[in-house]
Amino acid sequence: MNRHLISAADLSKDDALLILDTAEELAAVSERSVKKLPTLRGRTVVNLFFEDSTRTRISFEAAAKRLSADVINFSAKGSSVSKGESLKDTALTLEAMGADAVVIRHRASGAPHRLAHWVHGSVLNAGDGTHEHPTQALLDAFTMRRRLGGIEGRRVTIVGDVLHSRVARSNVLLLNTLGAEVTLVAPPTLLPVSVHTWPCQVSYDLDAVLPKSDVVMMLRVQRERMNAAYFPSTREYSRRYGLDADRLARLPEDALVMHPGPMNRGVEIAAEVADSPRSTVVEQVTNGVTIRMAVLYLLLGGAV
Amino acid sequence: MNRHLISAADLSKDDALLILDTAEELAAVSERSVKKLPTLRGRTVVNLFFEDSTRTRISFEAAAKRLSADVINFSAKGSSVSKGESLKDTALTLEAMGADAVVIRHRASGAPHRLAHWVHGSVLNAGDGTHEHPTQALLDAFTMRRRLGGIEGRRVTIVGDVLHSRVARSNVLLLNTLGAEVTLVAPPTLLPVSVHTWPCQVSYDLDAVLPKSDVVMMLRVQRERMNAAYFPSTREYSRRYGLDADRLARLPEDALVMHPGPMNRGVEIAAEVADSPRSTVVEQVTNGVTIRMAVLYLLLGGAV
Amino acid sequence: MNRHLISAADLSKDDALLILDTAEELAAVSERSVKKLPTLRGRTVVNLFFEDSTRTRISFEAAAKRLSADVINFSAKGSSVSKGESLKDTALTLEAMGADAVVIRHRASGAPHRLAHWVHGSVLNAGDGTHEHPTQALLDAFTMRRRLGGIEGRRVTIVGDVLHSRVARSNVLLLNTLGAEVTLVAPPTLLPVSVHTWPCQVSYDLDAVLPKSDVVMMLRVQRERMNAAYFPSTREYSRRYGLDADRLARLPEDALVMHPGPMNRGVEIAAEVADSPRSTVVEQVTNGVTIRMAVLYLLLGGAV
Repeated sequence: MNRHLISAADLSKDDALLILDTAEELAAVSERSVKKLPTLRGRTVVNLFFEDSTRTRISFEAAAKRLSADVINFSAKGSSVSKGESLKDTALTLEAMGADAVVIRHRASGAPHRLAHWVHGSVLNAGDGTHEHPTQALLDAFTMRRRLGGIEGRRVTIVGDVLHSRVARSNVLLLNTLGAEVTLVAPPTLLPVSVHTWPCQVSYDLDAVLPKSDVVMMLRVQRERMNAAYFPSTREYSRRYGLDADRLARLPEDALVMHPGPMNRGVEIAAEVADSPRSTVVEQVTNGVTIRMAVLYLLLGGAV
Repeated sequence: MNRHLISAADLSKDDALLILDTAEELAAVSERSVKKLPTLRGRTVVNLFFEDSTRTRISFEAAAKRLSADVINFSAKGSSVSKGESLKDTALTLEAMGADAVVIRHRASGAPHRLAHWVHGSVLNAGDGTHEHPTQALLDAFTMRRRLGGIEGRRVTIVGDVLHSRVARSNVLLLNTLGAEVTLVAPPTLLPVSVHTWPCQVSYDLDAVLPKSDVVMMLRVQRERMNAAYFPSTREYSRRYGLDADRLARLPEDALVMHPGPMNRGVEIAAEVADSPRSTVVEQVTNGVTIRMAVLYLLLGGAV
Repeated sequence: MNRHLISAADLSKDDALLILDTAEELAAVSERSVKKLPTLRGRTVVNLFFEDSTRTRISFEAAAKRLSADVINFSAKGSSVSKGESLKDTALTLEAMGADAVVIRHRASGAPHRLAHWVHGSVLNAGDGTHEHPTQALLDAFTMRRRLGGIEGRRVTIVGDVLHSRVARSNVLLLNTLGAEVTLVAPPTLLPVSVHTWPCQVSYDLDAVLPKSDVVMMLRVQRERMNAAYFPSTREYSRRYGLDADRLARLPEDALVMHPGPMNRGVEIAAEVADSPRSTVVEQVTNGVTIRMAVLYLLLGGAV
């Protein structure tokens, strides 16, 4: 396995399965109520966040602390970065201070990739622009596997603003590697022009796809993009692409409803659907910490 | 004892005494210079602050760390909350990430109460709107008991902007439970309309009450509320309701001067009074960490 | 040794050498890949930052954590300080909460000195106004000693905006104590009027001084001060006082190029110079953590 985690595309099937299996073992340890492992004692994980994302930052922070690593949070606001320091100098500085891993969130697609050229430690992509969010895809795959018993051959439908979604892209890549069949459903204006090169199907008709789905993954709507894009309103969006109780009823009985969070209840997902037993929203959060523990464990070399 | 600490009203006399006695033991341990206890190793405490309050956040953080818990700070600014996530989803997310306790500060009265319905872990109210701040009342009671030898029958006078003070409300409730006699002194416009239902006396004449007080607790004045309320100026407020050296002289010899901080020196309390040996302001801060250790210790169940 | 570190001027030659020797030992331990020492377990270090300085804050945080201290970050923004609390009350509050050391960064020269009068714990100056930044001077001295084998008699040239630089002042004082010969090079408008009382030479001609320098330390240019001061533009500044490849060639063969960071590549230092093997910029960052470990270790009394 690579010493970085930049893109879901970099993960071979064996890599991905190793991460999922490691997460499974860590979950088993955690369920025996051993909450803290000494594995990364003395290691330092830096959360380098150029965009606010409390949820993702906390998930990585909790994962690192449960492995006994020291965590240092670096928010780019008000830092040297705003005094004009380059990403390269920031990276070299963090490494020189002893960072064994840098978890980076950046508005520019490709920033984690560049970072990885400059540092000797591990770089973990926690979301770069509209590009990738590989640990999200891993936690989603982990959730599917735990709930459905496997991923191979499962039909996963991803719904919503694919154009701006790093979650969608990372999921398509990883799920394809793991043998799932992925269908994207979105208004044409919210699909990337390159979508025909992605290893998945595309549909514009949610109701036609639902009965053939084992998993429906709803993407977060960025309300601020609504009027500028295809739809006149969130209401219209909700009517055409939202998952409500009626649509939930059209899913196969054991199908899962997933959402990366934070949810806009009443927009892309109805409150009753979000809270239904089919919804894995809360499990995904728990699994997120477990997956990030697995990735840190594997990248930082495990036991000393 | 309840698994949450939402309101001073929820504490029976036995509950309150258990907390005070536990704090006494922890203080004794700390004075033997054992600064760190392993009690909460592997537990995670999340500070969920929707309002800035560095002082209270640091006090909880120090308390949790001295018990070897992991602490994660969550400031609502720039978080999913500002992207429209509901309090419920935030709560479920934090719990799913493994939070054993959530310490919440919120501008809305009742927010900690609602939070407690949604999570299985412990909720600690670190101040909700104008409603309650129960650990402040506990640390104040702890300070009184250490200094005066007991609380039963002591006469406590609370002075200032009661209307907007969660500190006053929590103190009135807890001190009443512990058998003290509480008198509120405030301009009529800075008293809540419901004050006649509170278990305490009310007076408008500070100078009449002072000679009969074992404790005078000065409330922080919110300067921004001054002109909008009863008084034309901080100067006028200070003259009628401030504690200066002349008024200090009218107190019984062993009476205490308390203040929850941060103080407006020269407004509700004169600098020389704040720094006098009668003032417990600094002790209150130390006791705040000890009380929060005791509460975390009791709510999170002590040794595994 | 004093229990505080406020000014490089307070350090005797023996004090400074003790710090450098301790850092040398800690670096040796760290190179044996023992990354975490139990020395300060149970001690609390508070980073009290009234100015943003992520770089310095993280360096102190990493240093304290490697010694197993608990670290609490206090940013003055949105804190009681902005509600009008005095520095004294903030200091007393932090001490009452159990801070064993306060690392302070403040825009006002002299703030750490005042703080030291109020608290019993250690105060570490992490930069006060245009006054001092003693740990920066120590890490610079440590870097020189490691690279050059010693400091006594070495010729150190400090170039740039001396007027606004706490780094320059602390370096002049410490290097003089350690027996180096320091020359400042700056436009006359960017020198303090008191510079003739400093224990160093002054020159306005960089090219004349370079061939006689064992170390050239480039100061960070604050671009926003450019037009208001002597020079019409950063370009003109760069031409007269910047270190480019041509000037690098005029340095003695083993001379070092230093910079406290963050660098303005292309202004005071050319990118190729910053990245040359002569540059110690990255080592300085690593040494910064080591020096801060040494200072915390010595001030907080080492093993219990």
